[in-house]
Amino acid sequence: MEIINRQKAENVKIAYVGGGSRGWAWQLMTDLAMEANLSGEVALYDIDFEAARKNAVIGNRLGENPEACGKWAYTAYEKQQEALKGADFVVISILPGTFDEMASDVHTPEKYGVYQSVGDTAGPGGLVRALRSGPMFQAIAEDIKTVCPNAWVINYTNPMAILMRVLYDTFPGIKAVGCCHEVFHTQDLLCTALEKMRGTAGVKRADLVTTVQGVNHYTWITKASYRGMDLFPMYREMAEKYRENGLVEDGDTNWMNNSFKCVEKVKFDLFLRFGAIAAAGDRHLAEFNPAPRYLKNPETVKSWGFGLTTVGWRKEDLKRRLDRAQKVYDGEESLTLKASGEEGVIMIKALLGLGDMVTNVNIPNIGQISNAPLGVVVETNAALRDHFLAPLMTGNMDETLLSLSMPAMSAQNEILRAIRHKDARLCIGAFINDPLLCELQPEDAVKLYKEMLENTKKYLPGWNLEVE
Amino acid sequence: MEIINRQKAENVKIAYVGGGSRGWAWQLMTDLAMEANLSGEVALYDIDFEAARKNAVIGNRLGENPEACGKWAYTAYEKQQEALKGADFVVISILPGTFDEMASDVHTPEKYGVYQSVGDTAGPGGLVRALRSGPMFQAIAEDIKTVCPNAWVINYTNPMAILMRVLYDTFPGIKAVGCCHEVFHTQDLLCTALEKMRGTAGVKRADLVTTVQGVNHYTWITKASYRGMDLFPMYREMAEKYRENGLVEDGDTNWMNNSFKCVEKVKFDLFLRFGAIAAAGDRHLAEFNPAPRYLKNPETVKSWGFGLTTVGWRKEDLKRRLDRAQKVYDGEESLTLKASGEEGVIMIKALLGLGDMVTNVNIPNIGQISNAPLGVVVETNAALRDHFLAPLMTGNMDETLLSLSMPAMSAQNEILRAIRHKDARLCIGAFINDPLLCELQPEDAVKLYKEMLENTKKYLPGWNLEVE
Amino acid sequence: MEIINRQKAENVKIAYVGGGSRGWAWQLMTDLAMEANLSGEVALYDIDFEAARKNAVIGNRLGENPEACGKWAYTAYEKQQEALKGADFVVISILPGTFDEMASDVHTPEKYGVYQSVGDTAGPGGLVRALRSGPMFQAIAEDIKTVCPNAWVINYTNPMAILMRVLYDTFPGIKAVGCCHEVFHTQDLLCTALEKMRGTAGVKRADLVTTVQGVNHYTWITKASYRGMDLFPMYREMAEKYRENGLVEDGDTNWMNNSFKCVEKVKFDLFLRFGAIAAAGDRHLAEFNPAPRYLKNPETVKSWGFGLTTVGWRKEDLKRRLDRAQKVYDGEESLTLKASGEEGVIMIKALLGLGDMVTNVNIPNIGQISNAPLGVVVETNAALRDHFLAPLMTGNMDETLLSLSMPAMSAQNEILRAIRHKDARLCIGAFINDPLLCELQPEDAVKLYKEMLENTKKYLPGWNLEVE
Amino acid sequence: MEIINRQKAENVKIAYVGGGSRGWAWQLMTDLAMEANLSGEVALYDIDFEAARKNAVIGNRLGENPEACGKWAYTAYEKQQEALKGADFVVISILPGTFDEMASDVHTPEKYGVYQSVGDTAGPGGLVRALRSGPMFQAIAEDIKTVCPNAWVINYTNPMAILMRVLYDTFPGIKAVGCCHEVFHTQDLLCTALEKMRGTAGVKRADLVTTVQGVNHYTWITKASYRGMDLFPMYREMAEKYRENGLVEDGDTNWMNNSFKCVEKVKFDLFLRFGAIAAAGDRHLAEFNPAPRYLKNPETVKSWGFGLTTVGWRKEDLKRRLDRAQKVYDGEESLTLKASGEEGVIMIKALLGLGDMVTNVNIPNIGQISNAPLGVVVETNAALRDHFLAPLMTGNMDETLLSLSMPAMSAQNEILRAIRHKDARLCIGAFINDPLLCELQPEDAVKLYKEMLENTKKYLPGWNLEVE
Repeated sequence: MEIINRQKAENVKIAYVGGGSRGWAWQLMTDLAMEANLSGEVALYDIDFEAARKNAVIGNRLGENPEACGKWAYTAYEKQQEALKGADFVVISILPGTFDEMASDVHTPEKYGVYQSVGDTAGPGGLVRALRSGPMFQAIAEDIKTVCPNAWVINYTNPMAILMRVLYDTFPGIKAVGCCHEVFHTQDLLCTALEKMRGTAGVKRADLVTTVQGVNHYTWITKASYRGMDLFPMYREMAEKYRENGLVEDGDTNWMNNSFKCVEKVKFDLFLRFGAIAAAGDRHLAEFNPAPRYLKNPETVKSWGFGLTTVGWRKEDLKRRLDRAQKVYDGEESLTLKASGEEGVIMIKALLGLGDMVTNVNIPNIGQISNAPLGVVVETNAALRDHFLAPLMTGNMDETLLSLSMPAMSAQNEILRAIRHKDARLCIGAFINDPLLCELQPEDAVKLYKEMLENTKKYLPGWNLEVE
Repeated sequence: MEIINRQKAENVKIAYVGGGSRGWAWQLMTDLAMEANLSGEVALYDIDFEAARKNAVIGNRLGENPEACGKWAYTAYEKQQEALKGADFVVISILPGTFDEMASDVHTPEKYGVYQSVGDTAGPGGLVRALRSGPMFQAIAEDIKTVCPNAWVINYTNPMAILMRVLYDTFPGIKAVGCCHEVFHTQDLLCTALEKMRGTAGVKRADLVTTVQGVNHYTWITKASYRGMDLFPMYREMAEKYRENGLVEDGDTNWMNNSFKCVEKVKFDLFLRFGAIAAAGDRHLAEFNPAPRYLKNPETVKSWGFGLTTVGWRKEDLKRRLDRAQKVYDGEESLTLKASGEEGVIMIKALLGLGDMVTNVNIPNIGQISNAPLGVVVETNAALRDHFLAPLMTGNMDETLLSLSMPAMSAQNEILRAIRHKDARLCIGAFINDPLLCELQPEDAVKLYKEMLENTKKYLPGWNLEVE
Repeated sequence: MEIINRQKAENVKIAYVGGGSRGWAWQLMTDLAMEANLSGEVALYDIDFEAARKNAVIGNRLGENPEACGKWAYTAYEKQQEALKGADFVVISILPGTFDEMASDVHTPEKYGVYQSVGDTAGPGGLVRALRSGPMFQAIAEDIKTVCPNAWVINYTNPMAILMRVLYDTFPGIKAVGCCHEVFHTQDLLCTALEKMRGTAGVKRADLVTTVQGVNHYTWITKASYRGMDLFPMYREMAEKYRENGLVEDGDTNWMNNSFKCVEKVKFDLFLRFGAIAAAGDRHLAEFNPAPRYLKNPETVKSWGFGLTTVGWRKEDLKRRLDRAQKVYDGEESLTLKASGEEGVIMIKALLGLGDMVTNVNIPNIGQISNAPLGVVVETNAALRDHFLAPLMTGNMDETLLSLSMPAMSAQNEILRAIRHKDARLCIGAFINDPLLCELQPEDAVKLYKEMLENTKKYLPGWNLEVE
Repeated sequence: MEIINRQKAENVKIAYVGGGSRGWAWQLMTDLAMEANLSGEVALYDIDFEAARKNAVIGNRLGENPEACGKWAYTAYEKQQEALKGADFVVISILPGTFDEMASDVHTPEKYGVYQSVGDTAGPGGLVRALRSGPMFQAIAEDIKTVCPNAWVINYTNPMAILMRVLYDTFPGIKAVGCCHEVFHTQDLLCTALEKMRGTAGVKRADLVTTVQGVNHYTWITKASYRGMDLFPMYREMAEKYRENGLVEDGDTNWMNNSFKCVEKVKFDLFLRFGAIAAAGDRHLAEFNPAPRYLKNPETVKSWGFGLTTVGWRKEDLKRRLDRAQKVYDGEESLTLKASGEEGVIMIKALLGLGDMVTNVNIPNIGQISNAPLGVVVETNAALRDHFLAPLMTGNMDETLLSLSMPAMSAQNEILRAIRHKDARLCIGAFINDPLLCELQPEDAVKLYKEMLENTKKYLPGWNLEVE
């Protein structure tokens, strides 16, 4: 890469691992196209080479758009190492396995009366997904160590926390961060609150200052201010006002029509009980709590104002996206140049020295949360500067919040152990102890675990899957 | 007091607070009577002065037994400070409130489908009992600070951990330890295992070496050996053998006939899941786990081989004990000189310099469990020497075990805060988040809390009890 | 204050405590005059009211300069509380006592063969100065607590670290930072190195990224990079090249003509021994090391290429500054609008939300240096944002560097204790153990301490000064 | 081994590494001969096989003494692994190198004006001795790992702390403790104080309770009591009374006639300055302080009432001991059965389950000193039980005491690094920064280091010894 000055960098090489299923890759492509001060190569790698190739075509075509001020050459590679070689940045966004395995992750537990709203982070689905993804991330980390050890690595894949841990465990010298937009959405909610509760419209989340502590998808905003004004009293008013019926939006984006929406009732409930702002979508938050609370059964879920995202829906959604991809590839449709709201490109700029930033990241705890276990991947703010990243010190986490997070934190240890030793027994404690399985008798939990492992076993070659 | 030599001490003053309901007081009396190397005064104080007076009569009569080698003068006092004045040791064993309040602690939650096997430590019952006992222990600590600040204080009252915390919070200079025999019983179980699984009979718990970590009644033995032999493989065999049907004893002591018995199935289940030996009776252990696991309903409880101790039974039991007390007082019956199995007198000797000992105690964490929150009262081993006590360093607690303990640990903080500020709202997070209430919707939990507070309010004068 | 937008703030109130001796006050005045986006009031307070009044006149006149784009009204107050009332920011820059006391701090030890190059931070001079300043800073903190508890406080006064500690000890809720330019100068040295060793001219310190750990004036840069390039190998080359003769500059700024200059030999020596870049002037660094190393006698000092700043010189220098002040006040001379190189105004902007920044600050350790004692005031980087400041996490300090810093860190504890209890005996351990006194026999050290206390006793009313 | 009951063990195998120079080996032999409840084999290994063989003869002959109640068979082995094979206990007491190397350690620095009173722990002599011993202890740890990984290892060799660190670094699973009698002697001094200052004669050190914190030979007693009475006020009186002239004993044991004696003036000085009881001989303590304080020159040393132990004297002393050894071997003289005062045999009994004990040991810090660096070998009390050892928790060390200890603690890290990488440069920071070298200019320190390395280089094959 070449840093022209503190505004501009050229010949930057970004390797993109995954992205065959389009969503995240296209977002990065459009964000890059809209950024005038960066240019270079994007090297695409996906286990589905054809998908990567098509993405390259689409990416290059995007650059021809006269409004695209960022100039990038997209190339698809057949081998991961080739794509990574010499990269300045590596972006990881893969689907670990297929939606068939995800269907098992999400729906097999339903046979046992266990419902999951997402199933990709916590709960039995998140754990089995972690096992399946572990070897993939070990391989990625090994390749990075070999061909681009100094690259900055940005991961978007879930289950975020444990996969970041696998990266650092495999290659301790890696410079990797996990990025997630769930906190952003909660910051947006604070802006909404400023409008609804205080009549202050037009505030953007970048105008707020928040302190963030937790594990990804169960992160807490423990302080929030706008121009020095503490936002907690305002948030409390909103929580009290909408605790009963939720914060319902109209139309298309209504939660009943949209798998990804919620009415924030879980968030308000958690705030009124524990005094901090849970900073993820309700669908994620619910999964970190004992099943009977928010996910007892579909009726309970409905009463809390969110939906269970089925994998059937995801498959259809994927089909729609693939159809559109084909059209874009065929030139029948084109990508619109609209900012994604993600921060990947801003982070890349910051790490290139084109402007400092502070944002929430997922990295191993070296003490940024003083009383959380060291080594566990946590989510806090960090300062990103010219080739530099350091977490902001947050001090101790409130011990009640810490106790809520500890099952997820300690599960990281067990899952990592299982991945290291290729032995599914080594995280059986984490599985049985998962809050979503608290209603199962232990023997039923084990039976479920066996069944889920069976459904994902082709991704776990050489593993011991005999659990009991 | 007067230390004659490293074998003998005279003129020792022990103040006994509580004991009106006999059980614990008589155990101490007989243990003292059987210890030739100690003598002095026992000062009895109970809010029921008459009960203390009768105990004094009984204690003094016990000394007349020709086999009683320890000579003690028993006196009842009307004021707590008088009893405490100049004490070398203070023993606390009170019933906080009456069995009427305890009936509410244990049985009110049943209206909401929540069952408790003991209800004096964890769960909604334990929390409300803690609130009720808090002011009593603040008063005791204040009096100790005033009239016998250098005394060693031994507490037997539940909820142990939080009450120890209140003592230290009120008088930071206090030299207090919480003692509990639940670990002893688990050590006895290891001796039973040596006999049943290895054919080694006659081993006593004092012959074992165990490492202990946790919070009282949810403590774990994380290492155990007998003459250098690791006992964990043997315990695993036993757990696997008896996981199905439990370790059933015959006759009178059978759990179906005895409120305090269990068949260790919970203990074996926890071991097989988490790899450490839970060191308390199953009735206690069950209460630290999510309700559906072991306490879903009376049938589940039965299937795990223990009983729900009703307060009705406790009231009858008390009546029997009071009847017997009257007979003993009237001289119609006499106390038998049989060692209680408790360690209070051995501890007193150790602290007087008559022989070092190592045993499990409950004191604030100063780092003996490296990764548990500082200040929280934990249970580990300690060395007791001549006027000296220090916990043995145990290092980090396994993070899965720590995550299981964190709700209890963080509840201590919240309950302490509520007691300090006389405000029941300040521990509402701990109440709602209690594993035994995980099946309640939050508003039902609050309703239950209100009802329970109402039933205990006369012990909380000046408190804010308005929760919502 | 009024935040107009993310670029502009009006009606800001800055209270300035001290500044009668002009140096620092005028720097702030010119920096404010040159900043178009801020305006408001500067409230001046000095124990010498006349000096404050003259500064107000000068400040207001500065605003009339057509090139002064920042508009500020300067007012002098007779009472500290009046000046502080309602302040958004408080700047503290006082001379604790007069140069007569400072003459004792610096020169009394010379009778005992102890030489100090500055005498305001470490060494016997720094310790006694800390005692003298302690009560003044207690009073400032009390007034801030009373009349402007939400103000951001920026301190420039030495001894920085201990005085910051006194502020936080007196008013734990204070939002105070200690600012020091010594690290800046070391960053400038790195820029010089880029030019001299690599031929890269024109780099500014703001272009570097450095990690900072330590106690003020004995801070270390433990990592430094420029556009991702590690600067340590380059610095090593420079250190080796100039270790013998130092990095000598020509003319006026030559160290032999300038009390504040040095040739970096101490800095290079420390780097070559310990592998990190000591980030303060050599005159300061020398004072944290055992006396025989760099300060054995004037010859040794000379051989290391720096001078002993005499208080006689300081008195003359003050006279010169006062003369000039009178001329400026009389309108015979005027202040030039030249940026001071200090960061006070940039920090004020950042805290007002007009642009984030990262810079080195002195605040109590909450874990930003993981293995340094908690509570001790340390110097690390921090992120400053809209009404927000948090230290960047630096992890562990190299243990050799920590061992070098521990005498200064533990001295903070002792000095604070002495100030709290108004008892000079309580830091006698720190005094005797100071590296600069290592050649004294203990009784001589005590004799020296007595003599120095005697010379400063009028600032310590009600203290126990009987040491032995 | 065979544990007969909690009083008796047979067929115990003790391997003794070193001991050719007799002192420590004979002490163990006589202690074993006097212990009726232990018996078995002592396997002797020394690099001087002949010395080991003679010791075996002497040991076996000792067993024929009718008063020898402990029956042991002594055998000399030519290979270390043979001696260690199957050992239950390993005792290490070697002389690393010969007195020729020690002569360099102690006396080469004198050319530079640096005096050492012992030269085997701290100072330049201690550091170089550590380098020389490192590879020997790596080899011992490797052999233990191979042939007796479960043995308990007791080390008496200096420099104690760093050598313990090497053992644990080489074989992390080792069960090793470092034992040192310096604390015992300080406890004896407290007994002397009880007699001299309070008239209480006949108290033995085992009757005291002390809290110990620090690094070996610079350990501090931070609390001491006798039957609950705080001994610090009494010790203060003694320190004040004898600070001037020291505590002089008559006759043979007078320090002027005995290389190992002192008059405790250093100890009293440290107490009066820092408030804790330094728990080692003054000769050791002096070496941890800046040279000018206690070791400036022979006159200063004399004024503090101790002597500089020359290696010439040691050589003569060795000759005397060897002469005597020959006589004993030839049967012209015999060993007297007198208890050594060491605790090795008591520790062996405790670890065999024949009686718990608490004593001071040197092991890696796992938190027993909360604020000392983890991993560093520290000295605190530990509880020894049946096949079990755990340090007693001591909490934080006073930060001033910690700052005094940090140079020694951080030197451990550097020296270990040098030993691991066979590179003498890697501890040059520790060398130059040693308090005893504080008067040297850095280039002279390096010159000294080179010269000392040259004199010991035959023990450092394959090392990089090029320092600069």
